[in-house]
Amino acid sequence: MDFPHSSPPGCHRVLLVGGKVAQPNRERNGRSVGRGATGGQGERPAARNFRVRRERSRALGTDQPYVLYAARGWGSVLVEAMLALCGADMRIEQIDGFDHPGENRSKLLAVNPLAQVPTLLLPDGTVMTESAAIALLLAESFPEAGLAPAPDDVRRPIFLRHLIWLVANIYPTFTFADYPERWVERETDRLIDTVRRHREALWRMFEAEIDPGPWVLGDLFSVLDIYVCAMTHWYPRRAWFEAECPKLHAIALACEADARLSPVWTRNFGPETA
Amino acid sequence: MDFPHSSPPGCHRVLLVGGKVAQPNRERNGRSVGRGATGGQGERPAARNFRVRRERSRALGTDQPYVLYAARGWGSVLVEAMLALCGADMRIEQIDGFDHPGENRSKLLAVNPLAQVPTLLLPDGTVMTESAAIALLLAESFPEAGLAPAPDDVRRPIFLRHLIWLVANIYPTFTFADYPERWVERETDRLIDTVRRHREALWRMFEAEIDPGPWVLGDLFSVLDIYVCAMTHWYPRRAWFEAECPKLHAIALACEADARLSPVWTRNFGPETA
Repeated sequence: MDFPHSSPPGCHRVLLVGGKVAQPNRERNGRSVGRGATGGQGERPAARNFRVRRERSRALGTDQPYVLYAARGWGSVLVEAMLALCGADMRIEQIDGFDHPGENRSKLLAVNPLAQVPTLLLPDGTVMTESAAIALLLAESFPEAGLAPAPDDVRRPIFLRHLIWLVANIYPTFTFADYPERWVERETDRLIDTVRRHREALWRMFEAEIDPGPWVLGDLFSVLDIYVCAMTHWYPRRAWFEAECPKLHAIALACEADARLSPVWTRNFGPETA
Repeated sequence: MDFPHSSPPGCHRVLLVGGKVAQPNRERNGRSVGRGATGGQGERPAARNFRVRRERSRALGTDQPYVLYAARGWGSVLVEAMLALCGADMRIEQIDGFDHPGENRSKLLAVNPLAQVPTLLLPDGTVMTESAAIALLLAESFPEAGLAPAPDDVRRPIFLRHLIWLVANIYPTFTFADYPERWVERETDRLIDTVRRHREALWRMFEAEIDPGPWVLGDLFSVLDIYVCAMTHWYPRRAWFEAECPKLHAIALACEADARLSPVWTRNFGPETA
């Protein structure tokens, strides 16, 4: 399987972080989005909308942190990184091994019968899945976090196209290559091989779209770079990207060098990525 | 293959619509978004952003209609329906049979080397792909068209989750079941069968999310209903949905009854759907 093996052996030596995690960028962003946040006349519409939602949930007695159901090295790393950039109040429910029967799977099933990772509980209790949907929602709730270009930015169309393309084209290849026995009986090796070649071809297409860097959107960092950083840990993995997709590889390294995100990468992929 | 066979035989008797297509909802929406559109102080941010973009492209001498590369019965029907609701200036480049070598494939390759459908040229010439990205962009450019709940709407999270879920889970099953020979040599029938069963299971999950209707988001129509209407034409097709997913089937029928959209359904799936 591509996903579980994507975590380097060192991963399990990393200290388990339970309960609240650090919010390294709250100060860097020059604002607070926590319980004390209030908005003035000048706040942006999305920030105001989020504040209204928070105040509504507080009035209902449901003011809660975001709760992320996370498995180290899995797709939840994407949302963990996004929430770190947002400086959001968050709690991680660690559910490693959720893809097999057991306590962690039961814990996830209790909130999401589809047992998907990432699963995120919003402050009002809404169950969210699909990393790209979560990215779009957090970008609206935390416009200053820099997850996405604003709707009036000329880079908005290309941002949306790349975001959807990643989750609708590359991501599904894991569904088919990671569990070949679900789809065929005897040609499992061939299925793994053809789907992996397809994935490599898709990454090459994406590499060709990067011009000139340093980020996917040129000089604008976005959540797309978080996807590149996380997904290049999975098959065909970093050495392949370094050789075949040097621009994507450079984005991954630059993203790992971001001090706001390094605790997330270390927790998910081991200390050598910090 | 699931896609091409999804068009009923009557499809080919439909009159070919070339050049500009009708814009049935421009009046119904009580506004004009064409060349004469101007915005006052009270216009919404997304409408203003779109106007700014249009005026910028006009100043550059690049004011053009949207150009949709469309194949009847394929995924381009989604964008065709969205543009109809927006009342946007649009032109359709008909490229039926683009998935085989020929003039239509060359026409598409000239603007999109990946030969994807839908491909949409924005008024400023930007090439857009990925129906969900186009949906999000059009929802921002035409907020009054009702494609999506606004960012401050309580239904926004569930809208984003469903939209991404459809294109990241159900849509990719066509990539694998439609072209099994790309993935395996001998077990093509088994691959088609297992992927189709998987698709049916996904649709049943989606059916379970619909409560109470009449639309995916309850009493709020959105582009999600356009997806349901179009995708239920494809395998496992309408008779299966009627029997197994009656709420989705009812959404499809209600969507087909929308006078703004019926020319789109007829053009793509034949007159019996009008």
